[in-house]
Amino acid sequence: MKKILLIILDGLGDRPSKELNFKTPLQAARKKNIDFLASNGIVGLMDPIAPGIRPGSDTSHLNLLGYDPYKVYTGRGPFEALGLGMDLRPGDIAFRGNFATVDDDLNVIDRRAGRIESGTDKLAQSLNIKIDDVEILAKEGVEHRVAIVFRGNGLSPKITDTDPHSENSKVKISEPLNDDGKKLAKIVNEFTKKSYEILNNHPINIERRKQNKRPANIVLLRGAGIVPELENFEKKYSLHSACIVGVPLISGICKLAGITPLKIKGVTGTINTDMEAKIKGAINALNEYDFVLVNIKAPDIAGHDGNPILKRDVIERADKAMEPLRDIIDKTVIMITGDHSTPCSVKDHTGDPLPVLISSEGLRKDGIDSFDEISAIKGSLRIRGSDVMNLLLNYSDRSEKFGA
Amino acid sequence: MKKILLIILDGLGDRPSKELNFKTPLQAARKKNIDFLASNGIVGLMDPIAPGIRPGSDTSHLNLLGYDPYKVYTGRGPFEALGLGMDLRPGDIAFRGNFATVDDDLNVIDRRAGRIESGTDKLAQSLNIKIDDVEILAKEGVEHRVAIVFRGNGLSPKITDTDPHSENSKVKISEPLNDDGKKLAKIVNEFTKKSYEILNNHPINIERRKQNKRPANIVLLRGAGIVPELENFEKKYSLHSACIVGVPLISGICKLAGITPLKIKGVTGTINTDMEAKIKGAINALNEYDFVLVNIKAPDIAGHDGNPILKRDVIERADKAMEPLRDIIDKTVIMITGDHSTPCSVKDHTGDPLPVLISSEGLRKDGIDSFDEISAIKGSLRIRGSDVMNLLLNYSDRSEKFGA
Repeated sequence: MKKILLIILDGLGDRPSKELNFKTPLQAARKKNIDFLASNGIVGLMDPIAPGIRPGSDTSHLNLLGYDPYKVYTGRGPFEALGLGMDLRPGDIAFRGNFATVDDDLNVIDRRAGRIESGTDKLAQSLNIKIDDVEILAKEGVEHRVAIVFRGNGLSPKITDTDPHSENSKVKISEPLNDDGKKLAKIVNEFTKKSYEILNNHPINIERRKQNKRPANIVLLRGAGIVPELENFEKKYSLHSACIVGVPLISGICKLAGITPLKIKGVTGTINTDMEAKIKGAINALNEYDFVLVNIKAPDIAGHDGNPILKRDVIERADKAMEPLRDIIDKTVIMITGDHSTPCSVKDHTGDPLPVLISSEGLRKDGIDSFDEISAIKGSLRIRGSDVMNLLLNYSDRSEKFGA
Repeated sequence: MKKILLIILDGLGDRPSKELNFKTPLQAARKKNIDFLASNGIVGLMDPIAPGIRPGSDTSHLNLLGYDPYKVYTGRGPFEALGLGMDLRPGDIAFRGNFATVDDDLNVIDRRAGRIESGTDKLAQSLNIKIDDVEILAKEGVEHRVAIVFRGNGLSPKITDTDPHSENSKVKISEPLNDDGKKLAKIVNEFTKKSYEILNNHPINIERRKQNKRPANIVLLRGAGIVPELENFEKKYSLHSACIVGVPLISGICKLAGITPLKIKGVTGTINTDMEAKIKGAINALNEYDFVLVNIKAPDIAGHDGNPILKRDVIERADKAMEPLRDIIDKTVIMITGDHSTPCSVKDHTGDPLPVLISSEGLRKDGIDSFDEISAIKGSLRIRGSDVMNLLLNYSDRSEKFGA
């Protein structure tokens, strides 16, 4: 049995760009280590979810790890909260929230409280309260955004939003959509009232009024979702598992799945993350763990920036960091792929397929010695994200036989 | 966001034939415009439904447009009626019918009324009657064939046929298969009796008897199906949508889906259809519509005729008509494929996969510069008909992201 290393170059897939002579960043990058791995294994194309489906990082990572996003991705709330680094538990109900400005009659003047830029950490802190037996957790996001989590027994997300979704409307009373939603709807309505009482005269808002800024004096909630109970990854696959991931959203998903996030110095989830530390950390971790997931966010950031030169450069940095992987393919199955394409020309995720490689000593070789979107067409894999764990288990000699 | 043009060359896929030096018609055709589109985009193979499944034009078009034929194709009746150009509504119950010859005791002498060849239009007209609150619509097909539609409240297709499916048997009494079928079974039995009363002494039959031909003096019904309620295409995909289609079956399906059939002079659905008018009409329509479906029936007709030379020639005509498409790939995503293979050697539909191309400026190029069944193998697409709409939405920048 071999160990398994799954490296996700986030947002890896791309389209040709003029700046790179109509090559993709992967085609343009010098990447002798990744190409070495490709030439020592199996290559092809992967649809992270299905052909043409435009994935988020969350739905794609879930699918790659063997959790059907159509079943477990029940709403954006929980995943936005995970993205803010909140420590969630299965059964928690999470909402996307806005700090907003209301008048004394709770008419919404501004759904974004003047796009408030500072002080929301303190406002969020003041909302960590308890109503009846329900604990409420709040965490600020970018600008006016805030995640609100309700933790307690007997809560269901089957309730309506308090966010009227337009201005000059009154804050809505949350209504249960069925009997299961009754308890949470009541708590949510109380929370909304309390958020006004707490925030309206909060020192941050007193100061904002002095500066003729709109107070962030209520929280509007939308997009309720329940934090899913993911089948424990270690039990599901009999793999002692860890991840090295800078991005809170992905490490949050790993934690929910029971994959241990490892702290490595210099790993940030930004464009300047220490990729060598990440890869070395992963190789070390493989001494203790059977399965290590590494996510390198930098290519996605360059894609969202629409900067193909930068994307090529971060791929080259990643490649350099991967040099030590050459020495572990005798005892490790390495997969390199992405979670979705983020073409620089689109500056957002698309449903284009991704190149994927599986490298290990002794496997068939496809004869593909360059790893990119076009070379991969000639490889032997034409898979979906949901095939990844089965392939990794197979090539690491860990699969259970189906039948006799 | 780009516009979407989906061109279905009906029955496009083929097998090698001796007459074409063991090439397929697509391989043998000179088709510089289609090849230009292929070389500027993504190419591959498509199973219209699933590998090896032999589709009808109806089930395939349904699948390509995003309607699972296993769910909405509930019987041939409705689709045969659509194919005859009948204007159907969701909930209508349609049957395949035969004009047949019976004796006075309603014993079937000839299930095809001597393969009656003329006058069936007048016979069908005489059957447009009302029984209780149920309206009955009849439309003649080829020879002895007739489509019968029952329109009214509370009708279910869960009833047995009146057609005994063999001669020298009595016309069957239709029985409800469950409680839902009771109303229609009663109406169908009354209709059958009335069809005899109306037809037995119809002038057409009096004349036939004079000529020693068998009278078409009853209608036998089989294959009841309910016209499905298709989710509105424009709402489902947020695409203002039109089609340019000569074949009644396909324009009928489009109408049911809420896709507006456009009338273009010279468009016939026959081998002599004006392909240039079709393509020009589509380009014009794209000014107003987001999505335009074009069906060119001619290759299928050549396939059913078993004529590979003709099939090659109609492909060359289609290619010539497509010249103006070169100028719209900056703002349009163009897909060219078929709905099924109709190999000239088989003279009927087969489950062989079809070549497919997606062309638009800025997409990855697969490096395939010839569009045919064999070159397509080396492309990057290996899809099913049900992937088509997702791919078109993705490449036209119209997809909603699944997740964050």
